[in-house]
Amino acid sequence: MSSSFMGRDVISILDFKRDELEKLFELSDKARRLVNRKLRILEGKVVSLAFFEPSTRTRMSFEVAAKKLGADVVGFSSEESVSVAKGENFADTVRMLDSYSDLIVVRHRLEGAAKFASEIALNPVINGGDGRQHHPTQAMIDLYTVRELFGGIDGLTYAVVGDLRYGRAATSFIYALTLFKPSKIYLASPPILVARPEVTSLLKSRGIDFEELSRLDEVVGEVDVMYVTRVQRERFPDPSEYEKARGAYRITLKLLEKAKRSLKILHPLPKVDEIELQVDSSRHAAYFLQASLGVPVRMALLAMILGGEL
Amino acid sequence: MSSSFMGRDVISILDFKRDELEKLFELSDKARRLVNRKLRILEGKVVSLAFFEPSTRTRMSFEVAAKKLGADVVGFSSEESVSVAKGENFADTVRMLDSYSDLIVVRHRLEGAAKFASEIALNPVINGGDGRQHHPTQAMIDLYTVRELFGGIDGLTYAVVGDLRYGRAATSFIYALTLFKPSKIYLASPPILVARPEVTSLLKSRGIDFEELSRLDEVVGEVDVMYVTRVQRERFPDPSEYEKARGAYRITLKLLEKAKRSLKILHPLPKVDEIELQVDSSRHAAYFLQASLGVPVRMALLAMILGGEL
Amino acid sequence: MSSSFMGRDVISILDFKRDELEKLFELSDKARRLVNRKLRILEGKVVSLAFFEPSTRTRMSFEVAAKKLGADVVGFSSEESVSVAKGENFADTVRMLDSYSDLIVVRHRLEGAAKFASEIALNPVINGGDGRQHHPTQAMIDLYTVRELFGGIDGLTYAVVGDLRYGRAATSFIYALTLFKPSKIYLASPPILVARPEVTSLLKSRGIDFEELSRLDEVVGEVDVMYVTRVQRERFPDPSEYEKARGAYRITLKLLEKAKRSLKILHPLPKVDEIELQVDSSRHAAYFLQASLGVPVRMALLAMILGGEL
Repeated sequence: MSSSFMGRDVISILDFKRDELEKLFELSDKARRLVNRKLRILEGKVVSLAFFEPSTRTRMSFEVAAKKLGADVVGFSSEESVSVAKGENFADTVRMLDSYSDLIVVRHRLEGAAKFASEIALNPVINGGDGRQHHPTQAMIDLYTVRELFGGIDGLTYAVVGDLRYGRAATSFIYALTLFKPSKIYLASPPILVARPEVTSLLKSRGIDFEELSRLDEVVGEVDVMYVTRVQRERFPDPSEYEKARGAYRITLKLLEKAKRSLKILHPLPKVDEIELQVDSSRHAAYFLQASLGVPVRMALLAMILGGEL
Repeated sequence: MSSSFMGRDVISILDFKRDELEKLFELSDKARRLVNRKLRILEGKVVSLAFFEPSTRTRMSFEVAAKKLGADVVGFSSEESVSVAKGENFADTVRMLDSYSDLIVVRHRLEGAAKFASEIALNPVINGGDGRQHHPTQAMIDLYTVRELFGGIDGLTYAVVGDLRYGRAATSFIYALTLFKPSKIYLASPPILVARPEVTSLLKSRGIDFEELSRLDEVVGEVDVMYVTRVQRERFPDPSEYEKARGAYRITLKLLEKAKRSLKILHPLPKVDEIELQVDSSRHAAYFLQASLGVPVRMALLAMILGGEL
Repeated sequence: MSSSFMGRDVISILDFKRDELEKLFELSDKARRLVNRKLRILEGKVVSLAFFEPSTRTRMSFEVAAKKLGADVVGFSSEESVSVAKGENFADTVRMLDSYSDLIVVRHRLEGAAKFASEIALNPVINGGDGRQHHPTQAMIDLYTVRELFGGIDGLTYAVVGDLRYGRAATSFIYALTLFKPSKIYLASPPILVARPEVTSLLKSRGIDFEELSRLDEVVGEVDVMYVTRVQRERFPDPSEYEKARGAYRITLKLLEKAKRSLKILHPLPKVDEIELQVDSSRHAAYFLQASLGVPVRMALLAMILGGEL
């Protein structure tokens, strides 16, 4: 049944086919119905969380997902707390985790860390976010949220907003959309944070209608799904440039006056002030729902990879 | 049976009635008898420990209590390790935990943090200590310890010693005593660390006989229960004032020569040097017993709130 | 059956007799066959990990071992995260853990910390490494690895290499060998890091053939088991001395050209650059196997001490 996931590494969302993701979403539906029970399907399995870079949501939702399936969980939540601090090389740390556990979730600031780990480990490795491009399980949750809200992913107009250059969640979401048939994708970012050439090339080669924008307000009325990410101060050499960018990509109730009633806003969280607080209680806010779906989607993924029958 | 606790938030000890606490203590007795067994009554439940301020005893005893009942536990033990460090607002962090778990224990340096969390979360919130006044589960353990030592809480003479102004455990203990019928309460503190007006007002309005003291030695012979807390150096603008205060409220074997044979000393721990080390092995020391009762009382509380039958 | 281990503290490898270790190894064999199952033999037990000094491998393998046996695990992984930071004395921290759990694993930078903890705690204490001499469970794993590789521990020629003065794993390994009948032990270290007098005295008093060397290359052809440890820069007042020492005790493919085909290299890990990376994939590298045996040996030890039937 879940044969194509069994024992598999999860490095990039682009490694997956549309029908595989649809299978994952069906199992996620099932996981949601079972979410209040303690299951035993991964009993005897150990999941390692190797978070070389801190993360609350990804780490905790993987931990909850694994435990609900009956697995044991060990790991660390920052580089400081491990022997890496003594100068141990990454490969040796991965080998250790591989010998103690049945699956490793890796989070790392460096591009390619998860891929490298998967080449060393005998057991499956899941990329919990590395570098600037890949956060495949976040993209799975994002797509599943859209499917939940709209009944499907195809035929919708998307706007991906904020830091498209360094933000791994935004980039993974765009990659994920290329596996489906979006009606149009707007890429709205400050000029110094536009999407990387490999992203726009891929969109072109897959024949997806997209447009890069430096203003969001002109298109907001067309959009069904707005995917918002943070614009970090550190990216801007000039503070006044940052202030300008911040204003232009901030989601406010005023901006949303022009939006469709059915517009839904996603955000990988944590958010700081890129979404006005009043938006949280509007009909458009879907990011808390999105966050809550992290557990069932990760339950489904863990079960499929480790071979448990949900 | 435990209907008044079911699904309830635990913010302040003053939210409870005497008979509710007595019910809790009866269940704590039962939990002590079961403490060496793995129970399954909270199986399928997840407890989040959201410790924005570090704590060893409170965090670990909640963790042990939840696990002994069969619940899974996730969380963090300091602000640095979570997305709060990235600037995420407290409400968003609480919403995340609320969607991942069935109950949140919050510890925070700010007054009102637990109350605020309980207004956001759909699931119950337990205050694991916030601000300067509230640490309700510590007060439950303290009262339960007195009941264990003396067979009851009424009719005894209490001295609460140390920092009554900023110490949340001391203040919560005084609040807790107002739900019972103490014979007398002495409040012994340096002048700059006297109990807050809201505390003394409450004692008056509930008709409790109390007296504020700046010297402990004169009344030590009358006291049944001495509740000692730390006097922190940082509270004193002048180091020599600190040294004087420290000496006057330090519990020594010499001071205890004047005490009743049956006097028992409580302390929420950790202690530094406010109790002479030799006192640890005296007949008066009850603080290690008190610490050990943290697990069964918290087991009983978790079971009652989450609806498990102990 | 496991009566001599039941309820016992594990402070130094020298507290054990050869036949006790052999019993442990037999049970470790059994644990390896059960390692993919969730056992329930320690269900209802709580194991505390009190790591006052960070460690990844020791902490995580104890955690995995305890959980695989069905125990719950609580604890901390550095001094900063506990009340020790508030000035609590070590004895009070140990008393707390003792009242919350059934067994404490202590790791501490100070010599004697585990022994002191065992005098305070009512429950058994396992030394997870303290000071400069004792890391008994590492020694158990090391011996078990030799037994796995060579079918036994007696009659082999050993070289222990690196920091023999401050390295607790190396010293514990030498101590452990005195319980068996090695053919010969070479102790190869820079002059300022030679083995302590108590170590060489013990070797003499037990009639073990040993030789202290400052060059490794001359004897490499005779050795069956080479136990390598890190030479830390901080031990050397003069950087040029460090560079010299580092070169002389570094294990390279070139050095190994002179070795027996059957030579096996052990290392307690983490390693930095004391073993050339290419050695990792040679026939001689046994340190990844050694690391992986940490879980079953610790499973066997926990089961024997806490009285569970594996």
